[in-house]
This record gives sequence, structure tokens and C-alpha cells, in this order.
Amino acid sequence: MDFVYGPGKNHLFVPGPVNIPEPVIRAMNRNNEDYRSPAIPALTKTLLEDVKKIFKTTSGTPFLIPTTGTGAWESALTNTLSPGDRIVSFLIGQFSLLWIDQQQRLNFRVDVVESEWGRGADLDALASKLEADRSHTIKAVCIVHNETATGVTNDLAAVRKLLDEYRHPALLLVDGVSSICALDFRMDEWGVDVALTGSQKALSMPTGMGIVCASPKAMEAAKTAKSVRVFFDWNDYLKFYKLGTYWPYTPSIQLLYGLRTALDLLFEEGLDNVIARHSRLGKATRLAVEAWGLKNCTQREEWFSDTVTAVVVPSYINSADVVKRAWTRYNLSLGLGLNKVAGKVFRIGHLGNLNELQLLGCLSGVEMVLRDVGYPVKLGSGVAAAAAYLRNSTPMITSRI
Amino acid sequence: MDFVYGPGKNHLFVPGPVNIPEPVIRAMNRNNEDYRSPAIPALTKTLLEDVKKIFKTTSGTPFLIPTTGTGAWESALTNTLSPGDRIVSFLIGQFSLLWIDQQQRLNFRVDVVESEWGRGADLDALASKLEADRSHTIKAVCIVHNETATGVTNDLAAVRKLLDEYRHPALLLVDGVSSICALDFRMDEWGVDVALTGSQKALSMPTGMGIVCASPKAMEAAKTAKSVRVFFDWNDYLKFYKLGTYWPYTPSIQLLYGLRTALDLLFEEGLDNVIARHSRLGKATRLAVEAWGLKNCTQREEWFSDTVTAVVVPSYINSADVVKRAWTRYNLSLGLGLNKVAGKVFRIGHLGNLNELQLLGCLSGVEMVLRDVGYPVKLGSGVAAAAAYLRNSTPMITSRI
Amino acid sequence: MDFVYGPGKNHLFVPGPVNIPEPVIRAMNRNNEDYRSPAIPALTKTLLEDVKKIFKTTSGTPFLIPTTGTGAWESALTNTLSPGDRIVSFLIGQFSLLWIDQQQRLNFRVDVVESEWGRGADLDALASKLEADRSHTIKAVCIVHNETATGVTNDLAAVRKLLDEYRHPALLLVDGVSSICALDFRMDEWGVDVALTGSQKALSMPTGMGIVCASPKAMEAAKTAKSVRVFFDWNDYLKFYKLGTYWPYTPSIQLLYGLRTALDLLFEEGLDNVIARHSRLGKATRLAVEAWGLKNCTQREEWFSDTVTAVVVPSYINSADVVKRAWTRYNLSLGLGLNKVAGKVFRIGHLGNLNELQLLGCLSGVEMVLRDVGYPVKLGSGVAAAAAYLRNSTPMITSRI
Amino acid sequence: MDFVYGPGKNHLFVPGPVNIPEPVIRAMNRNNEDYRSPAIPALTKTLLEDVKKIFKTTSGTPFLIPTTGTGAWESALTNTLSPGDRIVSFLIGQFSLLWIDQQQRLNFRVDVVESEWGRGADLDALASKLEADRSHTIKAVCIVHNETATGVTNDLAAVRKLLDEYRHPALLLVDGVSSICALDFRMDEWGVDVALTGSQKALSMPTGMGIVCASPKAMEAAKTAKSVRVFFDWNDYLKFYKLGTYWPYTPSIQLLYGLRTALDLLFEEGLDNVIARHSRLGKATRLAVEAWGLKNCTQREEWFSDTVTAVVVPSYINSADVVKRAWTRYNLSLGLGLNKVAGKVFRIGHLGNLNELQLLGCLSGVEMVLRDVGYPVKLGSGVAAAAAYLRNSTPMITSRI
Repeated sequence: MDFVYGPGKNHLFVPGPVNIPEPVIRAMNRNNEDYRSPAIPALTKTLLEDVKKIFKTTSGTPFLIPTTGTGAWESALTNTLSPGDRIVSFLIGQFSLLWIDQQQRLNFRVDVVESEWGRGADLDALASKLEADRSHTIKAVCIVHNETATGVTNDLAAVRKLLDEYRHPALLLVDGVSSICALDFRMDEWGVDVALTGSQKALSMPTGMGIVCASPKAMEAAKTAKSVRVFFDWNDYLKFYKLGTYWPYTPSIQLLYGLRTALDLLFEEGLDNVIARHSRLGKATRLAVEAWGLKNCTQREEWFSDTVTAVVVPSYINSADVVKRAWTRYNLSLGLGLNKVAGKVFRIGHLGNLNELQLLGCLSGVEMVLRDVGYPVKLGSGVAAAAAYLRNSTPMITSRI
Repeated sequence: MDFVYGPGKNHLFVPGPVNIPEPVIRAMNRNNEDYRSPAIPALTKTLLEDVKKIFKTTSGTPFLIPTTGTGAWESALTNTLSPGDRIVSFLIGQFSLLWIDQQQRLNFRVDVVESEWGRGADLDALASKLEADRSHTIKAVCIVHNETATGVTNDLAAVRKLLDEYRHPALLLVDGVSSICALDFRMDEWGVDVALTGSQKALSMPTGMGIVCASPKAMEAAKTAKSVRVFFDWNDYLKFYKLGTYWPYTPSIQLLYGLRTALDLLFEEGLDNVIARHSRLGKATRLAVEAWGLKNCTQREEWFSDTVTAVVVPSYINSADVVKRAWTRYNLSLGLGLNKVAGKVFRIGHLGNLNELQLLGCLSGVEMVLRDVGYPVKLGSGVAAAAAYLRNSTPMITSRI
Repeated sequence: MDFVYGPGKNHLFVPGPVNIPEPVIRAMNRNNEDYRSPAIPALTKTLLEDVKKIFKTTSGTPFLIPTTGTGAWESALTNTLSPGDRIVSFLIGQFSLLWIDQQQRLNFRVDVVESEWGRGADLDALASKLEADRSHTIKAVCIVHNETATGVTNDLAAVRKLLDEYRHPALLLVDGVSSICALDFRMDEWGVDVALTGSQKALSMPTGMGIVCASPKAMEAAKTAKSVRVFFDWNDYLKFYKLGTYWPYTPSIQLLYGLRTALDLLFEEGLDNVIARHSRLGKATRLAVEAWGLKNCTQREEWFSDTVTAVVVPSYINSADVVKRAWTRYNLSLGLGLNKVAGKVFRIGHLGNLNELQLLGCLSGVEMVLRDVGYPVKLGSGVAAAAAYLRNSTPMITSRI
Repeated sequence: MDFVYGPGKNHLFVPGPVNIPEPVIRAMNRNNEDYRSPAIPALTKTLLEDVKKIFKTTSGTPFLIPTTGTGAWESALTNTLSPGDRIVSFLIGQFSLLWIDQQQRLNFRVDVVESEWGRGADLDALASKLEADRSHTIKAVCIVHNETATGVTNDLAAVRKLLDEYRHPALLLVDGVSSICALDFRMDEWGVDVALTGSQKALSMPTGMGIVCASPKAMEAAKTAKSVRVFFDWNDYLKFYKLGTYWPYTPSIQLLYGLRTALDLLFEEGLDNVIARHSRLGKATRLAVEAWGLKNCTQREEWFSDTVTAVVVPSYINSADVVKRAWTRYNLSLGLGLNKVAGKVFRIGHLGNLNELQLLGCLSGVEMVLRDVGYPVKLGSGVAAAAAYLRNSTPMITSRI
């Protein structure tokens, strides 16, 4: 694959797949194993127990599905809902749009609540709908915790508050693909019924494992949900959970060992410290954007995302040129603007196993690229702003003090 | 994972997941990459072109789906059929049974044609059905090329011959999970409409990629098939094929590089040589079984499988004890008997990146295990029989002559 | 490197370098690190402590030298002896010959005590020399514990006994390259003054680390030894040991982590169990050789080596053809006969991270090769003999019971 | 090794060992092999041929020795000189000092020509000595091309010019440890007689291979050199070169494959482009140092090193604190000041497989550290200065245009 090669490290700042830490790469560097031997179930048992911690749930039932985030979406929907069910779904960017597309193609009746791209979910609209829905025709509220296309984080606690306020029994289904393990996420406290993520996001693994967690209420709903499903059917998993062999079909041995190590690293750092690190990197990025005199695609601070920042370029620049230039000259991988914001924003993913100097290297690269494409940024300005903040907020590495 | 450890190599002889060759492990030993950079599409393009060769098709359209064999099944069915469609499906062992279960749960009307486990598909029954079906209500014939549970290989050419004889337009959907890249498989010549396999089988990779190939007729059927599908929808792939970016959602970067190397190794050895090697290993295994005085679960030579041999144990022995003993004493992983043949057979998988001495090591292990569990096999007898054959049939390693 | 490729695993049965266990390969799969950070000294400290256990010494001082076995030899000699010093050295095969060559080129006066190749060290000759040496002109006795060329193990306890009997103060320098971690070795009990091995032997790592351990008496000798040395000078190490930074020059980060894991695996299995396993594999190999009607190059049972067996071929066969054929047809790597026994013996290395079925696979391969080159061995005969013994002696894998 | 762990990548900016590119890590991720099979000699042959290119020699004879740079020094000296030989050696920093220490301990008569640390070799002194040495008692001139402790690059062409001017036959022995593959180095053109480097420096591999190249004149000298040597004796290599088996003792299989890939990467980038990249990174670093208001330890531009920069800290700061802080807070590995400049300088290694954004990340980290330890640097100032230069000088990545 000749043209991939460039000297030095690739600076991977797309919002997924993200950098894999060396210990996880090492853990996955192995031959296959018989997944029916006692070893793999024993390993799986620890994974199912520990993976609940990243959702902050004790009552949830997790599923480790050999699929992507798109498959995890499908698993969440088809196991809890029946064709024709009414659901409320928020359209705030490309990934919520894709989920809604899936919801529609799965034959749910989707009440799409649209916001301008760059804004969060319209919770007032949700309130109205909940209020009006005395007969509880709404079976589920579907929301993307963090919209990766625009860098918008929705307020899940507020959604739960509304549901409680109206005593509405709708299920709360949450796409946590670019949030879980990076943003504050509290499945039990927020009454999330299905939460899901993918291995290649903040867990910092390769793609290939969709991680879905279902509340007792979701598990109950699964008993009557009539959506057709086989590969994604939770019941097939539950059957094998009971047997203690865990797998209805062959899992990736490598991803299981990778997940074990990924979790170990998260717990060693401390999940709250991981979240604080993402908060730090997010804020530092935003300070740089501000210093560059550019706009964040996200319109209000309350929605700022700590995992991805979509940067709006001046109208005379095509953001795709930023991404291309970063790749072809500086070995820097940035995210493209998608759909409505194509050409208008480029994205800096700052999630997963990432530290301060990696981010500053990226920011210095973005500065050079911006100059390359004709935007008169002051070199060093964003780095300086970010560094000023990071120097005050970065903790010592606990294990090295 | 302490209790996995045993000195030396694990001898992996389950019929999947199988041994991964070192070059593939190396190729996958890498960080993530941006799958929207020019590199990954360029890589994918070569994969889609080259993967057709393992199906022996020039007209087929391949899909590399982040899923398992079970997902590949679902992809084959839902893209070509509509709920209520009548299909004929052969039940000859656990994996055909599971596929039939999936077919039924996906709401097709399944004409199950059952054979005794250990026998191949009942083609006479198929002939009757085809003959009777003047109005072409049968939309598809579903057949497992190689039933992994019993070590039975079905005669696909004969199936095609029947369909042609009766000029029946039914689609021919083939599970090639434990055959493709190991047994003779000719998609175009045999008029297979959808063929599929999984990465962890004869391709000798980790689990995680379902490889599905569709004939032009299958692609045409996909346009009108009404089965609900999103994650498995070929159209989503086709849209991105046209764009030249190839991926509707994030692929596993590692598996892509792994597949590149796996294909390179297959082509370096020569696909026909690979198939000949499997034929050699299969025959050697059967000679050993015979020398041990044991029965092959497969009742007739015409059905003998060159990828897996299910060995029937005497009635006073529980085959699960054979598997357990092999694992706990000799670091040898054998396949359990499943469902109807649970306790009655153990399975030796001899597929994928495997050579003669590995197999002989396994056979010598099986001999010791058989003695351990009380079967009075003559030690060395199976190895001798297998070696006598292998010594006459094993070619020189081309690259070393 | 095209012509290396052959399907399946390479069966590596040379007496070094040997198979590396997957956990060690994984541990070494890493970027470089600053060896002056606190991490590497902390790691090194554990290594220096734990490596003493493989020598069975508590009073010895270990050195982990970035070199091969040949360098380790040089380290042992130049740190303890002065040019012109008289030493007694046993010539029993190619590796003792090479060591003697080194001793001579380093300007020691070497009393070479030669045995026929295939016999052990002539201890009677040693006794005579010690008896005659009232004035203690002999400064050291140099002996190869296990001669890798002929598969002869010398009796170190007997050497110590002689030295004690004659109250002779000569240093006892031992090449343990193909013995330590595989054969019973007791540095303190046997009063060995310098013992050494290489990482690529029974430690089952890549080549590159010479491991040398010096008794207090050897350390004392080092203070006055006048041999010129810099790279191999223990004093440079000791200086850094005192500083707690440990390294006079840059170590291989990868080998340090590899050694950590290699030791962990040895201790998990239990060093005595490791030695018992080698004893088992050695005996099984010899039983096979006997069953084939071939002779062991080693003339008496007391010298039989449990790490390598040199098999004498009939005079009408060139043993190099055995080795060549094994490689070109069966992907089996055997050891050539060296020097005096070139063409006459081939060698089976059975040391390091190796188990019973691997060995049986090798033996079945040797049988086929022997037939290929014209020796009328009964296929399966050696495997049967080995298996009969192994089935009675192989323990359950502790971690899996 | 708990306390190593910190989130994200370690930023490795010590002047060795340096970052290993992923393709090299992958190439080394392998089991051992028989080094006497045809494969390893075939591989070695290509290495010996290609490694000459990094020295820019066609007439030199290369040796790949399982050792470190210190061992490579010893190989260069002992193979070409005899005890008592007079040599001229330049002391300009810690590594030249260590080499001189080795020279003295190897019993050469060393004319030490000392410069203040931070200055280059005193070539006037050399001129005087050469002029005075009509009888050619000086057998060799030993010079470190790039003094890693102070970041000083000596002018080898000028040394050659002096030798030629005085028609002096002394051998020219060059330590190229931190220069070869990074700085302009021309063995043949400059009449270098022995040049050497270590694998862990600009070749970007693990430690463990000393690479030594000898001119025909050096090879001639080796025939009469009386220094005692065995492990490092070139003759042992030459003997095996003639046999075509290449190795007098076991090489590291992993390092051989690693070197193959390392060379491939260098040639793919183009050796001159590699050197230009180092020049670019070196200059960018110096611009940052200047912007910080700090002094380069190197006193004159003519000596500036493009592989390592020693930065002088203000007298009220201990440079060890800079290094410690970088490690404990920012996961940044910098080089300590050594010996005379301990506490006074810290070092930024910018050699090997490294690109612009990696360096800028490092520089931003250094800025934060400087503030942490009390130096009032303006955050972003160094990054800005470096980036301004890099933006103008960094080429497009050829393979991606």
C-alpha cells in the first residue's frame, strides 16, 4: 500500500476510528483460539461484568455484538420495538440522520424533531409531544448523545427529566457511539433503556464490536417486540448466557482480549479521570479555534462536545481542502464535513487514548494547513491558547509521581 | 487469563476459528487509520477485485461485511427474498439447522428437506419439489456446501444440474463458510447466486468479516426483495461503491490489511494447490480414523469433507471427554459434537493455513486421548496410515526447491 | 522473502534459536522507550532479581549483556582471567571447540582435554590434572554443560566433586547455553563460578541477550583479572548497578520486556516442571530414535541430553539431505551435523517452549524424511514409541484441571 | 510495569533509542527461524548489499554485529589497531569521552584533543599533530561525527582534507551513531576507514545491532592488527561471508527482518530526503530555542546538529527537573544533560522516523515544562517560530500527491 507511507506517525484526529494504545494492539496480536474452550467464556464473563461500568449501570444487561455502530443501532431498535411503533427521534446532524433513516426503513413511525445543524436536540418540541401524548403512543425516544458530525452533545439528564415530568413510559434509546468512555454517561441515573457504542471510538480499539446495554425495562420490552431480527436478537445471546458459553456465534478472539486490555487501561486511569481528560482536550481545542478567529459549528456552550469539534471555515475556503492538505503534507488525518456541512466544516476528533501533546501537535498542524489554504491564522496562536489552559489543568500522571 | 496457559503451542483443530498465519497476524498488528482517506478505498478496491477469485466468479458482486457467518447468512437471505417467500432448505446438521431457524424467523416459508445427520442433502427430494413446482413458487434453494457439524460436503454441481434440468428459476443460495478457500468452489460455473463465507474459516483470519458474493441474478432480485434490512442492505454498499469510498460504515482497518495478506498468501500458494492441500489433509485424516477402527460420521465417500472430519466414538465413550482431555492434557483443541451428535462425535478441523506435520501432531494427540478415555487404539496406527499417504502425495514447497 | 513461505507453521526443531511463545512475542511488540526514565531501571531491577532463579543462585551477580552466547563466553573469560592463565577445557564437540578457540585467541594457556565426539568430558583426565597441580597453576576449568553439536550433557556435580576433593581453587566456568532453563542446573550447589546462557535458547526469546551470572568468587577474581575488556567489562555494569540506572549502554527495550514475560511463563509453569518437561521430551525423542533402529550420537545414557538429540544416519545417507528434505518438503527445520559429524548426524532440538504434540509432529516428519532419503523406517514406529511413553508421563496442564 | 502507563502516546524525544515505525515493528513481530536455512543467508545478502548505501560506500565491507554502539566502537578499534598504537581522538562531549575511555582501556596511546563542550573538534590541533608527525606514528584519527551529548556535528570533510594535505596515512575511524541515516555522510568521498552506527538511532529500530563498515584500507589493516578480539573479530565474519552462510554466531532473526524493512522505508523516502527532513527538523528546533530566549549548547552554527539539540537552561533551573517534569506530567521523554553539562542542558532528540507535527507537539510540551519549572517562556512562541519555517520548507508527501 505504497501511498500510505509518510515518515513518522500518522496523526489520527478523525472522530473514529481512533488511536489504539500499544497495550491493546499487543493484546490483540495473537492467533485464534477455540471459543468453546473454558478460556473464552471465562474471559467473556469478566468482560460482561466490567463493561457495565463504562455505562455506569449495575442493572443493565450488556451485549458484545460482532458488528459496527450501525449494527448496534439496529440491535437497540429491533429488540425493543415493533413495526409501526411511534418513536420520537432528533435530527441534529449526519449521524442522527442516518439513525433516523434506519428507524424509518425498519418501519417505525418516526416523529423527526429537527434542529439546525450545530444545535442540540429540541427538548421543547419533545416536551410538547410528551405532553400531548396522553395515550402513550410514543414507544421510544431516540437520541444521539453526541452528534459526531457537528460536535454537539445533548443533555440526556434533561431528556430523562422531561420523561419523568410527564410520567411517560417511552423507552429512552441512546446512541453513545462518540460519547461513552469519554463523556459523562450515567445509564442508571438517567434512566437510559438502551445505550450503545462501538469499539473503535472512545474505547480505542479496532472496529468490530458493537457494545449494547439494555435496562431491565428494555429487556422486558424485548419479550414482546415484534421487529424481525435474528443476527441481532438478544434472545440468542441470553440463551448462551444461561449456558455459560456466552456466544451464539463465533466472536473475534482478538477483540475480546483487546477489550479486556482496553477496560483495564480505562480503569487504571480511572473512568472519571478519562472523562476529565476529554473535557480538558475538548476545551483546549475550542480555545484554539477561538484564537484562530474561527467559529465552532456548535452554536452554544451547553452543547459543546468534548470528543469532537467541528470547525467552520471562512466561506472562501472549502473545508475538504483543509482535510486533504493535512493528509498530503503533514500526515494529519482530520474529519471531513458531512452532508449539510460538507465543505463548510472540518472536524478534529479528540477522543480515545490521546494526550495533551498529541493534541497540540495536531493543532499546530491545523494552523499550518489553514495558512496553506489561504486563511491568515497567526501560527502558534491556537497552540498558545490551548497550552495556556492545559498547563493549568493537566494533572501529573499518577503512576509516575 | 491464567488458565489458558500451557507450554508450547496450542494445537488448534476446531473447524473454526482456525490458525492465522504469521504474515496475517503481522499485517493486522497496527493502529487504526482514517477510513475516509484515499488509502483505504484504494486498498478496498484491490480486495473487492481479488476476493472474487476465491469464489471463482467474474460476474459476482462481493460485499465485505463487518459481521460473522450468521450475519452473512442474513445478508444473503434478506437482500434477495421477501417475507412469505417459499424456499427449500436442507437440514443435515447443526449449521444447516441454524440457518433454517434463521430462515423461519425471517418469515420465509421453508420447505425443510431433512437427512439423517451424516448424510448429504437429499437431492431426490429436491428433484421432486422442483418437478412439482411448475408455477415456480420456490424462490430459493438454500444449501450448506459443507456441514461443519458432521463433516458432510454437498454436491453443488448436482444441485445446479437439477435446477437446470427443471429450468427452475429459483435462486441458489450457498453457505460456503467451511468450504470456500478450501474445497473446490465454482460460483459462476455452478450458477450459485449468493455464496458466503466468514473470515475465520479457510481464509485463516480472525472472526469479524462476513464475505458475501452475489450473482447478477441475485443483484436483480435485491431490487425487489422486501425483507426488512438496513445494516445488511447491499444497497447501502452499492451507493458507496459508486462513490468510490466503498464503506457505508466503519470497516475494521486491521481486517482489511489482514484480508490483503490472506489473499496474497492464497494466491502465492495457488488456489488450486490450497484446495489440493485440503484434499490431502482430509484424506490423511480419514485414513487415520480408519486405522483407529473408528467410524466417520459421514456415511458415504461422496460426502466426505476435506475441511472437517467428525469421528464417531464407541458408545461407551462420551466424545465430550475426548475434547476435554485433549485440551486439559495435550493443549489440543478439538471440536465438540453438536446437538444430535453431542457426545457421539468429536471433530477434527483440518482447514485453513495448516500443513502435514501439524496434522500428524494432532493425530498423534488424538491417539493418546483415545487411550486416555478408554478406547484401545494402537498408538501410532493412525499417524502411520496418514503418513504413508502424505509421504506419497505431499509436493515440495515450490518456493524452496 | 518469497522462498521462506510454506503453508502452515514452520516446525522449528533446531537447537536454537527456538520457538518463542506468543506472550513473549506480544510483550516485545512495542516501540522504543527512554532507557533512562524511571521505568526501565524499575523493570531491570526485577529482571536481575528473578533471573538468578534460573541459575538457582542466591549469591550470584547477573549481567544481561546485549550480545550472543559467543559474547557471553568472552564476558565470562575476560572478566575472571588474565592472559597466560592456565585453564583446563574439555573438547567434546563443535561448541566446546569454538569456546576453546576463543580461549586460545584470548591468550590463555589451554589444557585441552579431548573426548571422542559423542562422549562426555573426560573427568579422569581432569582428576589427574588437578591432582598434579599442587601449585594451583590451573586458574579455571571451562566446561560446556550441554554440547549442542552432539547432544551430550556433562556431569557438573561430578566436576565440582573433583575440585572439592583436590581442594583446588580453580574457577568453574560453565557454558549453559543449551542447558539453563531446560536441564537441572544448580549454580550455588555445584559451586559454579560463572554460568551463562543466551536468550534464544531455553528462555525461548529472540537472540540478542547474553545472560551471565558470576559467583562471589568470580566477582573477586574480576578485580584482578587483567584480560583487556571494555564492552564486556562487568565493572561498567557494576558502576551503573550502584547508581540504580543499571545500563552502561543502551539495552534492547524489547528484550527486557520479553525477558520479563519469559521469566513469568517459566515461573508460572514452575522451573522444576519445565525441567521435567524437557526430560520427558528428551526421553520420548530417544525412544523414537531407538524405534527407528538408528543410533544416538551420544554414546552412553549418562550423557544423554534432554535438549538436543543428534541422530546418526546410516553410512549410505548424507544427513545434510535429511535436513534439506525436511525443510523443502515438510516445513520442518532440523539441525545439521557440524564439523566432525557433518553428514553423519542430524539434530533434533527439543528445548524451550515446546510441548508433546509439537514433538510428535516433528517425529512423524522425520520418519517421512527418512523414507524420502532412502532409510526404510517403519512409518509411525517412532511416534508410537514416543507416544507410549508420553501418554504415561505427561501431566495435566495445571491451570486447566 | 504499572508506572509506565500514561494515556496516549509517549512522546519519545531522547536522542536514542528513537521511535520505531509501525512497519518495522510489524516486520519484527515473528517467531524465530533456523538461521542456517537458505532463507536467512538470502535475506542477509540483500542487507549487506543495501546497508552500504546508508554509508554511501561501494567499496566498504559491512558487518552487522549483535551488539550496541559501544560494541561497534570496540569492533572498529580492535580490528584495525594494535596495543600501543598512537591515535588522535577528539574529546568534545560525553560520548567522545566514553570512546576515548574505551581507547585507553584497549591500550592505545591516545592523544586526546579536547574542546570545550559545545564546540566541535579542534582541527587546528589535528593539523599541528599531523604536521609534526613526519614519521607517521599516528595510526588513526578517531572522531565522533555527531556528539550526542552536546548536539555538535563535526566536519568530516575537513578532517579528510587535513589528512590529505599532510599526506598522512592514518586511518580515519568515525563514530556515526547519531549521524548515519540522518546527517549527510559520505564514507567513500570522505575517505572514512571505519564508520559505524547502532540500530536504535536514525535507523529507527530496536537496540541490538551494531553496524560497522570498513574501507579496503581498514580491511588491510585488520590483517595485521594485534588487538585481542574474538567476538568482535571481522575475520570470523569474513570466513562465513565466503561460505555464503554469513553468520559466525546466531543473529537476531527479528532484527534482520526489521533492518530489511527499515532500509526499505529509507529508500522509499529517499536517503537524501531523509537527510533533508532531519535538516528541517533540526533547524525548526533551533528556531524554537531561539524564540524561547534560550541558548543552544552548541556554540557555532557550523557545528549545529540536525539530530539532537542540547538546550541550555538558565542557571536558576536544574535541567534534570525539565526532563523529570516532561515525563511525569506530559508523557514526554527528553534527554538529560550528561557529565559536565548535567543539570545545565536538556536535550531534544529529533532523529529517526519522525515528522513535523510530532516535533511541534514536543516543542509545545517543552514550553509548558519550561513554565512549570519557572522559566517565563511565552507559550506558543517556539512552536510559532518552528512552524513558520516548517510551513515553508515541508514538502508534500510524495506518495500522496
